[in-house]
Amino acid sequence: MKQSSKNIAIVGSGLVGSLLAIYLKKAGHQVTVFDRRPDIRNVVFSGRSINLAMSNRGWKALRGAGIEKAIREIAIPLYQRALHVKDTPLYYQKYGKQGEAIWSISRGVLNRKMIDLAEEAGVVFRFEEKVWDIDLPTAQIYTGETEKSEWTAYQFDHVFGCDGAFSRVRHKMQRRSRFNYSQEFIDLGYKELTIPPNPDGTHKLDKHSFHIWPRGAFMFIAMPNLDGSFTCTLFLPFEGRESFESIRTKPDARKFFATHFPNVMQDIENLTEDFFKNPTSALVTIKCYPWTYWDKVALVGDSAHAVVPFFGQGMNAGFEDISELNDLMQTHGDDWEQIFSEYQERRKPNADAIAELSYRNFVEMSSKTANPEFLLQKKIEKHFAALYPDKWVPAYSRVTFSDRPYTEALELGDQQERIMKEIMKMPDLEERWDSEEVTQRILDLLLENPVKTP
Amino acid sequence: MKQSSKNIAIVGSGLVGSLLAIYLKKAGHQVTVFDRRPDIRNVVFSGRSINLAMSNRGWKALRGAGIEKAIREIAIPLYQRALHVKDTPLYYQKYGKQGEAIWSISRGVLNRKMIDLAEEAGVVFRFEEKVWDIDLPTAQIYTGETEKSEWTAYQFDHVFGCDGAFSRVRHKMQRRSRFNYSQEFIDLGYKELTIPPNPDGTHKLDKHSFHIWPRGAFMFIAMPNLDGSFTCTLFLPFEGRESFESIRTKPDARKFFATHFPNVMQDIENLTEDFFKNPTSALVTIKCYPWTYWDKVALVGDSAHAVVPFFGQGMNAGFEDISELNDLMQTHGDDWEQIFSEYQERRKPNADAIAELSYRNFVEMSSKTANPEFLLQKKIEKHFAALYPDKWVPAYSRVTFSDRPYTEALELGDQQERIMKEIMKMPDLEERWDSEEVTQRILDLLLENPVKTP
Repeated sequence: MKQSSKNIAIVGSGLVGSLLAIYLKKAGHQVTVFDRRPDIRNVVFSGRSINLAMSNRGWKALRGAGIEKAIREIAIPLYQRALHVKDTPLYYQKYGKQGEAIWSISRGVLNRKMIDLAEEAGVVFRFEEKVWDIDLPTAQIYTGETEKSEWTAYQFDHVFGCDGAFSRVRHKMQRRSRFNYSQEFIDLGYKELTIPPNPDGTHKLDKHSFHIWPRGAFMFIAMPNLDGSFTCTLFLPFEGRESFESIRTKPDARKFFATHFPNVMQDIENLTEDFFKNPTSALVTIKCYPWTYWDKVALVGDSAHAVVPFFGQGMNAGFEDISELNDLMQTHGDDWEQIFSEYQERRKPNADAIAELSYRNFVEMSSKTANPEFLLQKKIEKHFAALYPDKWVPAYSRVTFSDRPYTEALELGDQQERIMKEIMKMPDLEERWDSEEVTQRILDLLLENPVKTP
Repeated sequence: MKQSSKNIAIVGSGLVGSLLAIYLKKAGHQVTVFDRRPDIRNVVFSGRSINLAMSNRGWKALRGAGIEKAIREIAIPLYQRALHVKDTPLYYQKYGKQGEAIWSISRGVLNRKMIDLAEEAGVVFRFEEKVWDIDLPTAQIYTGETEKSEWTAYQFDHVFGCDGAFSRVRHKMQRRSRFNYSQEFIDLGYKELTIPPNPDGTHKLDKHSFHIWPRGAFMFIAMPNLDGSFTCTLFLPFEGRESFESIRTKPDARKFFATHFPNVMQDIENLTEDFFKNPTSALVTIKCYPWTYWDKVALVGDSAHAVVPFFGQGMNAGFEDISELNDLMQTHGDDWEQIFSEYQERRKPNADAIAELSYRNFVEMSSKTANPEFLLQKKIEKHFAALYPDKWVPAYSRVTFSDRPYTEALELGDQQERIMKEIMKMPDLEERWDSEEVTQRILDLLLENPVKTP
């Protein structure tokens, strides 16, 4: 259905804000994007970002905006995990037999490109203009130099809050009665580090792998960039024996890297310097409801549902919000109240599901990887999945390589957990984990434990 | 241990703020209480309050401040519940054999009295002075007419946020990284209503009872005041068939009261008028952590842990915070960092426990009271408790008439739930619920299911 042209404000020029801007502009609206920060195209990156893993849902949303091809050019496909397990030779896990891949993209590079594309489409960006207040019922926004300086008022038809986990727009909604809200931090922080390219510009590690050094309570990962470097992320507890707090000096840092990540020794000076140069950032899950105010204001992406990054779905989930909004705009035309109300009703359960899946991956990573029983369980699952790929789709594949709702992936995960709980009770499992008997029992349990349709 | 005199600010002149002020003043500190509202002693009450049920923890805190006697004079003991169940004659449930009582007090009357007592002790109150900002590391607070007007800065040694569920002080802490926070509203709202006294000044219902009209999804309660009136509270869903939304006109309200609460028919005009005069308020559970910032700022009462009112413990829990703080001040003297850190570590699990217990009471009230199995379970519990009062202390008694930690009451509740889950599986229970067999099975299960010490 065709929509009348509206005057629309987007708060936040990040990935979700700029993609939504392109969609809305192409749908015929006037679009102004406000950002309190300077134009990211003119500044040095902040050193606090994790490379993005664009997967199916992200690509689908980019395709819908007609910019998939442009973004593929700045992305590198990763076909496998490269596991740097301690005291074990490096080994690989393919994402799928059909060449499935996640795509590594630098957040900064992607954001610059998206703003370029949005500007080309006719979107107006107002950088370094901070939104201090929003009048929700009238979609009026107020900007100014400081909270106490003179403010400028702008009148819009609709306002989208794409201003991230610490959203100002949501903050305004939060002061209303009956607005449910939670922010829960985990005890782990993260820091961006870099492995530079070889002198000839090539990558120092396989460039088509997602490199992981799992260490139980902490973890190091590396994802390739186009320039031959890797953007690395160290996830580490804030406090405790091995923690950000316990690494105070350069010798501390060198010792830490040398002990735990010996195969990146050649870059230890670089890692150590980055360690003290770059900030330590916190990781938070944010949930709220409602996401919209009448037909006037809607939250999209992290402002509505920030998740911990252990499923690589934060951006993908935000982009999927936009696909869903676009579908609803096509269906309901000028009935924005209906668009917003269906948008939040459809997306909220899925946002909760990916938050839960992401958090479970954190728990799994940080407390279960050293548990022999857990490792045995994973071995059995993998064995069964190889025999019956249609009957045992890992939650990871369902989330990453399909666009079925996140709620289904969560239900699938729950079903598999129920089944494996029974399997793990079988006696002498260590000896016969790959036996026909165990396989048959899983087949039986699959029939007894159907996936609950959400 | 004696403390050096400090210059202390309290934000909020409500019950918790004024009681804390008395404690701190008596410990030798300079105390200034800020409140954005006018002095409650000079204004008409707002019509949005539920009468308070002072119980053991509250009295203990008042005793510690030397004001128990003064407050008893404005309170009415309630020795029993008076249950106005539909199509059933009025019946009573005593709180205990030893004359245990909860005490009904009007929030406004109590607050006025507490401010009087605090002023007599030498506390300075600054009413109609709104705190807009707090610099947490320096304990500096900023007040002003409006957010954009000129602000006045005050320097303190410590600041206590006693400014309730929508605390400005917590709001400032919430903007920090790694501050966990949640606000969850329930679908029920409430409205204050009044049953006036008889012409001769006496109460229209038994004045030593807590009157309850349970109606499943909604509920009406009445608590006596000294002037012969009852402050009543209607708890009702915001939306749905029987809801605040569905009662739009005076005839709607009259019909609603006449249908569901026929024995208050004589006051229907008064109730109906109140219904449209008084606001509908929302009910929220608020959790956060940490509660303190260095040795500078601490949250006390609802600002740290607002609960739904279905256990009558909101104020009692806030007052218990103060008892605990006072104990720690005695123990640690001038080591405020230690005082604040132990305060939050000790109180947080108990605050979470009373939040959970309060929420469970809401669920029980709103969705289980019509369930025959639930009613049978309660009948069995009551029967057993009468036989073995030492072995089966209802969670309500443990919370209301003891000062053992809330966490223990929650564990006790969980133990009882585990036991009753087994009991309810026994066949033909309707016929033999009071049999020796069932009693013996409970005794056995008590041994098998010890209370987990938190």
